[in-house]
Amino acid sequence: MNSAVIEKRVKKLQSLLKEKNLDCLIVTAVANVTYLTGFLGDDSWVVVFKRAVYLVTDSRYTEQSQKQCRYCKVIERKKSMPYAIFSLLKKHKSVKTPALESSTSISDFKALKKDTKLKIKPVDGLVESCRETKDSMELSATRKAITVAKNALAKALKQVKPGITEAQLAAIIDYEIHCCASINSFDTIVAFGANASQPHHQPTNKKLKKNDTILIDFGAKVQGYCSDLTRCYATGKVSKLYKKAYEVCCNAQRQAIKAVKAGEKIVDVDKVAREIIAKANFPVYGHGTGHGTGLEIHEKPTLYQLSKEVLKAGQIITIEPAIYIPGKLGIRIEDDVLVTETGCQVLSKSCPHGPGFA
Amino acid sequence: MNSAVIEKRVKKLQSLLKEKNLDCLIVTAVANVTYLTGFLGDDSWVVVFKRAVYLVTDSRYTEQSQKQCRYCKVIERKKSMPYAIFSLLKKHKSVKTPALESSTSISDFKALKKDTKLKIKPVDGLVESCRETKDSMELSATRKAITVAKNALAKALKQVKPGITEAQLAAIIDYEIHCCASINSFDTIVAFGANASQPHHQPTNKKLKKNDTILIDFGAKVQGYCSDLTRCYATGKVSKLYKKAYEVCCNAQRQAIKAVKAGEKIVDVDKVAREIIAKANFPVYGHGTGHGTGLEIHEKPTLYQLSKEVLKAGQIITIEPAIYIPGKLGIRIEDDVLVTETGCQVLSKSCPHGPGFA
Repeated sequence: MNSAVIEKRVKKLQSLLKEKNLDCLIVTAVANVTYLTGFLGDDSWVVVFKRAVYLVTDSRYTEQSQKQCRYCKVIERKKSMPYAIFSLLKKHKSVKTPALESSTSISDFKALKKDTKLKIKPVDGLVESCRETKDSMELSATRKAITVAKNALAKALKQVKPGITEAQLAAIIDYEIHCCASINSFDTIVAFGANASQPHHQPTNKKLKKNDTILIDFGAKVQGYCSDLTRCYATGKVSKLYKKAYEVCCNAQRQAIKAVKAGEKIVDVDKVAREIIAKANFPVYGHGTGHGTGLEIHEKPTLYQLSKEVLKAGQIITIEPAIYIPGKLGIRIEDDVLVTETGCQVLSKSCPHGPGFA
Repeated sequence: MNSAVIEKRVKKLQSLLKEKNLDCLIVTAVANVTYLTGFLGDDSWVVVFKRAVYLVTDSRYTEQSQKQCRYCKVIERKKSMPYAIFSLLKKHKSVKTPALESSTSISDFKALKKDTKLKIKPVDGLVESCRETKDSMELSATRKAITVAKNALAKALKQVKPGITEAQLAAIIDYEIHCCASINSFDTIVAFGANASQPHHQPTNKKLKKNDTILIDFGAKVQGYCSDLTRCYATGKVSKLYKKAYEVCCNAQRQAIKAVKAGEKIVDVDKVAREIIAKANFPVYGHGTGHGTGLEIHEKPTLYQLSKEVLKAGQIITIEPAIYIPGKLGIRIEDDVLVTETGCQVLSKSCPHGPGFA
């Protein structure tokens, strides 16, 4: 990754640390490690000091981290991670109260306190807050991740015919994504008919019928950045109920997208979609209307009824209202949207919509 | 999942809790939740009391959890997870000091303490210790996961020819795995030539040459249980160095497998492989010689130089010594092995070995 981009991120975090009177931060969350170093492996931690950044990794990642990380120093640990952090902190005598990400496990926290004999201060979401709005490199990677996903779907749809199983259709999508040297953002969901009423259905050997419906929720990762799309299609004849629900869900999504704009309250955007579904007498989905995407498939902000936040320009969020009727149907339409000062831009606009295959 | 199997696991944990004078355990680790309930989703916690088990989930998983969980009660939370746990504990007035898995994050721990106003005791690895040796259902699922992986590899090898990319070969393996309604244990590693010296290489668009080498590290998941295999192959002419290193690595693996037996010290098994590689004047790998597999790809025990444990009958472990020479080659041979009282059983024996394609 471009080291100027990384440097900018690190400097932003360092000034946040200064603001909060923290003289160093131990970063343990995988996505935060990637964000601050460009390193795409796992099991590695980062320590950000006032004037230096270290990646602490192990021999499995020495060669990879030297290639991927240009802005930080790489330490290959031979003993436990807490011990390696202790050794590093010892060399920085000015550090009195290191801060630690509060997403770290209680056991790692305890081991660190025991090994370092220092007072360690857990802090919430510092790097996450930097990650919430995206820089141009992140937007570009997300666009690529959407293109990979969209192209994979287009190729897979050509192979849809009665008799294909959920698992086979998911396999084709994943094959196309992986052929682009990309990986899945998460395990692809393909659900036929009533299986789609389970939002996180896992593909089975169920076969597609002549008159049937399909829900596909999937995404690709490019340079670590995730896309996340859901589309619904129908083969053959569509029931009146499905057609009506599909139209209502599409409208709910369209109107929610229209409401997206920097400064808007998240609850208000969330409400737009729910009210349209409720007014049409369909059951309202229990999950959020959307979420941020980036290095993680689910990141800040969460678009839900209890949110107290407003949207910010530069966030990339999903908008994904749904209608679930157990035993009957499941419909969810999901796009990736860039929040702007004047409204938003639907990044995944050109991904083909259903319900027909026309 | 068979509810008698789940009941047995829960009862084992309940007697462990009794032994340790704990009257309830809050389980937050995904794999532990699956182990105690059969539930295959995420974002859900379990609370195990003396006489009852609850799965606390959200609306995305209500239908799925009702299908997958026969032995526990399912609670669909409407508010935050800590609040839902607080409400549940309030109904169990006899609980004074709930225990919490120490793999839980510091922030969740704080939120729980704040919401419940109870003294919560973090405890280490209770469910993990139950998971360390496998029951017959787990062994059977692992065998199936190995078969899925093995068959996928056999099909993919038929498509290996000069010009294919690392990403395409990985895509074919994953396609075959997914067609069986199985998912990957982890992102498939395919590395050509010198790329294999990075143990966790991510497949690229690099093309296979006429005279080249291939490392494939991959696995499938069946009913939640992981397989984990590594094979190395060569196309065309093989360099003397590669051939020698391959033979040494195979021998190191064979001899380490011979040393596996319940009661043996893990350090001794680990040492067998390292010594053979060192004696042949090849660089000794920095990672462990193996690890347990199960609901997670890496679980207890870890086979490494600092281990203080002995092997136990019923563990399923990998044995995976390696030789890495950056810029030149990477070789790793990995099988899944069941530890028995009299030695071990190589579960993945029939997966074809290299380096030739004969």
